[in-house]
Amino acid sequence: MAPVTAAASGEEMHALVERMYPLCRSITGDGVRATLEIVGEYIPLQVQEVPTGTQVLDWTVPQEWNIRDAYIADTAGNRVVDFAASSLHVLGYSVPVSATMPLSELRAHLHTLPDHPAWVPYRTSYYKPEWGFCLAQETLDALPDGEYEVRIDSTLADGHLTYAEHVVPGQVPAEVIVSCHVCHPSLANDNLAGIAVATFLARALAERTPYYTYRFVFAPGTIGAITWLARNAERVEQVKHGLVLACAGDPGRLTYKQSRRGDAEIDRVMRHVLLASQRPHRVAEFTPYGYDERQYCSPGFDLGVGSLSRTPYAGYPEYHTSADNLDFVSPEAMADTLALCREAFAVLDRNRRYVNLSPYGEPQLGRRGLYDALGGRSDTKQAQMAMLWVLSLSDGEHSLLDVAERSGLPFDTVADAAGALHGAGLLKA
Amino acid sequence: MAPVTAAASGEEMHALVERMYPLCRSITGDGVRATLEIVGEYIPLQVQEVPTGTQVLDWTVPQEWNIRDAYIADTAGNRVVDFAASSLHVLGYSVPVSATMPLSELRAHLHTLPDHPAWVPYRTSYYKPEWGFCLAQETLDALPDGEYEVRIDSTLADGHLTYAEHVVPGQVPAEVIVSCHVCHPSLANDNLAGIAVATFLARALAERTPYYTYRFVFAPGTIGAITWLARNAERVEQVKHGLVLACAGDPGRLTYKQSRRGDAEIDRVMRHVLLASQRPHRVAEFTPYGYDERQYCSPGFDLGVGSLSRTPYAGYPEYHTSADNLDFVSPEAMADTLALCREAFAVLDRNRRYVNLSPYGEPQLGRRGLYDALGGRSDTKQAQMAMLWVLSLSDGEHSLLDVAERSGLPFDTVADAAGALHGAGLLKA
Amino acid sequence: MAPVTAAASGEEMHALVERMYPLCRSITGDGVRATLEIVGEYIPLQVQEVPTGTQVLDWTVPQEWNIRDAYIADTAGNRVVDFAASSLHVLGYSVPVSATMPLSELRAHLHTLPDHPAWVPYRTSYYKPEWGFCLAQETLDALPDGEYEVRIDSTLADGHLTYAEHVVPGQVPAEVIVSCHVCHPSLANDNLAGIAVATFLARALAERTPYYTYRFVFAPGTIGAITWLARNAERVEQVKHGLVLACAGDPGRLTYKQSRRGDAEIDRVMRHVLLASQRPHRVAEFTPYGYDERQYCSPGFDLGVGSLSRTPYAGYPEYHTSADNLDFVSPEAMADTLALCREAFAVLDRNRRYVNLSPYGEPQLGRRGLYDALGGRSDTKQAQMAMLWVLSLSDGEHSLLDVAERSGLPFDTVADAAGALHGAGLLKA
Repeated sequence: MAPVTAAASGEEMHALVERMYPLCRSITGDGVRATLEIVGEYIPLQVQEVPTGTQVLDWTVPQEWNIRDAYIADTAGNRVVDFAASSLHVLGYSVPVSATMPLSELRAHLHTLPDHPAWVPYRTSYYKPEWGFCLAQETLDALPDGEYEVRIDSTLADGHLTYAEHVVPGQVPAEVIVSCHVCHPSLANDNLAGIAVATFLARALAERTPYYTYRFVFAPGTIGAITWLARNAERVEQVKHGLVLACAGDPGRLTYKQSRRGDAEIDRVMRHVLLASQRPHRVAEFTPYGYDERQYCSPGFDLGVGSLSRTPYAGYPEYHTSADNLDFVSPEAMADTLALCREAFAVLDRNRRYVNLSPYGEPQLGRRGLYDALGGRSDTKQAQMAMLWVLSLSDGEHSLLDVAERSGLPFDTVADAAGALHGAGLLKA
Repeated sequence: MAPVTAAASGEEMHALVERMYPLCRSITGDGVRATLEIVGEYIPLQVQEVPTGTQVLDWTVPQEWNIRDAYIADTAGNRVVDFAASSLHVLGYSVPVSATMPLSELRAHLHTLPDHPAWVPYRTSYYKPEWGFCLAQETLDALPDGEYEVRIDSTLADGHLTYAEHVVPGQVPAEVIVSCHVCHPSLANDNLAGIAVATFLARALAERTPYYTYRFVFAPGTIGAITWLARNAERVEQVKHGLVLACAGDPGRLTYKQSRRGDAEIDRVMRHVLLASQRPHRVAEFTPYGYDERQYCSPGFDLGVGSLSRTPYAGYPEYHTSADNLDFVSPEAMADTLALCREAFAVLDRNRRYVNLSPYGEPQLGRRGLYDALGGRSDTKQAQMAMLWVLSLSDGEHSLLDVAERSGLPFDTVADAAGALHGAGLLKA
Repeated sequence: MAPVTAAASGEEMHALVERMYPLCRSITGDGVRATLEIVGEYIPLQVQEVPTGTQVLDWTVPQEWNIRDAYIADTAGNRVVDFAASSLHVLGYSVPVSATMPLSELRAHLHTLPDHPAWVPYRTSYYKPEWGFCLAQETLDALPDGEYEVRIDSTLADGHLTYAEHVVPGQVPAEVIVSCHVCHPSLANDNLAGIAVATFLARALAERTPYYTYRFVFAPGTIGAITWLARNAERVEQVKHGLVLACAGDPGRLTYKQSRRGDAEIDRVMRHVLLASQRPHRVAEFTPYGYDERQYCSPGFDLGVGSLSRTPYAGYPEYHTSADNLDFVSPEAMADTLALCREAFAVLDRNRRYVNLSPYGEPQLGRRGLYDALGGRSDTKQAQMAMLWVLSLSDGEHSLLDVAERSGLPFDTVADAAGALHGAGLLKA
């Protein structure tokens, strides 16, 4: 596989988003399956099908929803709202309907955004049987009173919930989980960009065997993550770190939302890398709302899982509307999100605690070829400073990230110094 | 009993202050008894009489002091300083005197405030036998040289120290103590306003059974609190929180002085409520000086007892002078102090730690009728957010106040959410 | 011995620096011995000689280096660079050489400072056999091409490493270590000023028996401190505090570099005294670079040893050049450094934790003659406030420095109050 380069992967990620965009995803159904099939062309996926009615933690896997067609037509037979034009036009999980009714009666089933009259909202009703259409306010305003034919050709029946996993094996079985939701219909930033970045991140990590094992989970929001957690009770014990990816392609600055713990290693790594990279960014406190960090960070699991977005959940006007489209996400933004993930995981992967095996006084680095022979100069090199810092703080309490932050030296310099000292027998991992 | 309303209680508290104002209180004696009799007309009191000579912690109950009359008269028999005009004119605990002497000799026994020539200072000599008069500097300046008759008709004899308690029974035996001093003579802000607010607070708390048992202590400063502590060694164990009320009626902003611990629950509650109420206020660090928080917070007890004042101890020029009079305290200020106490105790009373009984992933609130059925909207209601926050943080470590502070949601919304979740069987108290 | 006064000692310290200045010190050799002999005229020293080849922690005591003469001479026999003019002219630990070579070949052995063409740099090569000369860039620039005679009359042979100790016995065996390096040749601020301040500090401490035992270590940098640590394994256990003195005489403001722990008692004392004294100063974080705090603070020892300088290590252009000369250090600056040390050790020596023996309520100070008899006044004296603070915080957890910092009272007032309370039987040490 060719190494992932930023420019190339940006365009490729956008192309992947474009392919997935028209599909009508929901928390179950063929839209999810078709999406995972496309992703499977990039990275091998293990697809899981979990039957309707399966108990998953406090929840039950619902019936599977599929839809073939849906429209509102006027008496002349013109489709004034048509599912074929956008998967957003139908209320997610709509029960089937086939009826003729006056606009006045139909209105109770119509969802619009009066403040953004040209945009179509995204609405669902997963757990309460309902039907409905989403349309632009200006479309609604243009509809004359009168009778309309409404038809939703959907089925809600026992079936399965679908999710997929991809594993990049590491040197140790301890895992980093990367999770993104795959349940939103034609919304580009709010699910497709995250899927694309996760896909290319998996490919990039596979270029050389990482330290940790990286597990990618592509699952419908909430019920999908809950299903994964329910079916992986033992595996959860070895999930040491994690990241939920969402809203990964909009033009905003990067936002890292901390885990519930706030001081998990992933929190410290992300804060460090965002700061060190000098990207404009924001670090947000944990809230029990947003994406599937809600589930991973629920108090029973309390995993070290944060969430990386550009503009976060509900933070942009286009959120959950038809304006979250292919123009709203850019190759550059996705490439930048991907690059940040790679930088962060490079630090996470090398961040270790060592024990100085010669802790009484400084070891004589000179006779081990680790130190300049000529004394008295004040321009001591960064690499030597890094060795002194690693020796000083390697008491089993401090990680290399601690050393980098306390010394102000770049993490890579510190990690390289630790490698040299380890090679010289002065450190124990 | 009719519910306490702010406007009515402000006026009533001021009327109570007026009735108590003329009495000559000290750390013992009939002035204290008369004061407690008046308070007893508002709330039933258990009055305690502790004999002179009783050992109380490191102290001994002193002799009881009573005074009937006192004056300085000129040779024409005119009383130029007269105890009948103000109880402040006599040095507290003055031994009796009956003599004639020149002004030059009398001066050693006269106390004035040169910087405030129209005001009479308040002075005492509890533990060293002395006699003296307090008067305005301008009164002193107007006295011609010559002989004066001085007479203090006081007694200092074995008797009792008097204090009183009033209990509002709660749902649990754990106690909140509210303490105020009753030992200052005609000083309105510095003791009477606190007594009045405590009295009406007791009535307000009794309107519905509170969670905690609230114990009100009306006692002379220092020796009274020490006596209460000495006689209640076992009870102290169940004092969980407390508040010393003093200087409760002046026009200044509210001041909360933290307990010695600084992070006692009462400290957090008071800070939270003062901030949330958007009142101008000040939070002060503990100092081992001021009112009886000194005794409750002494290191052997170290109780979670703070102190609520408006302008604090010694912080206003009128402090310990005749200018701390009925005009210096207002119905509005006392009503505001009372209101803050009620708000704070409402939070204290509901502040509990819960354990989420469904901690693995989020419980499905929808099927319990606790969550909106229609998904996709971003205007999720505060009540639902509060439920998610309570579920997220209810791990036995966090109180509802922690939840309110971390979420930024109002405490009441959080407590209501906890109530709903508890009702649905999702939380354990 | 006459008490040390600031003005006198400033001049005396400068005179001491002048005497030591011409000597060619290195990490071993007669220059160190001659230096210690001079110091020994001021305070009695125990001089230690440690043989070449002795294993000291991870290091080995090197061969002893001595030098009698060194020069570069032109063909006319004129010494164009002459060790007799300055000990800096020879690369420290130069092996002997006696040769004639063209300037082009000689250049590889010449060290200059192009940015400061008039200054001679200080360079060493302790652990790699080398020879070389240090000279001003402008001297080098003036040398015509051609042959030069180079001669270094040095010996590098088995011998000893020399260091010295001086102890000021205290009331307790617990020790405070004061350490300074004695291995730099003609550099005034960077070693001589520290030696001079340490010497006069020892004399000042001896004026009255201090609480702690103060141990002064005069040793070559790095290898000397490592040798001391290696030979004092048991003693290290009773080193409770320490200070490395260096760069003690330049015109810059005082800099305290914290111990590796950052919250050692010496760190808190130095920060407190620097702040309380209102001197301009800087408190720096620990770094594993600088002077022998590197060794004392290595993670195996992790002693509470900080470092006091004026302008710190490598922080001034004159550092490690011939411009660090007798004019660069002043009597005033050394007197100020000495004064700060004395103030800090006065606090360290009195900083103790007490336990209040009457912790339930306030003890009655009045009957012990510790409190004003006349009540009611608001100008309570600082000494009384200090007693209340000491009583309040003396729970075994808080030191007198904690009391001073929390109360805002001067340390001496607090310590005096503790003394009075201890005298009255109210505190246990």
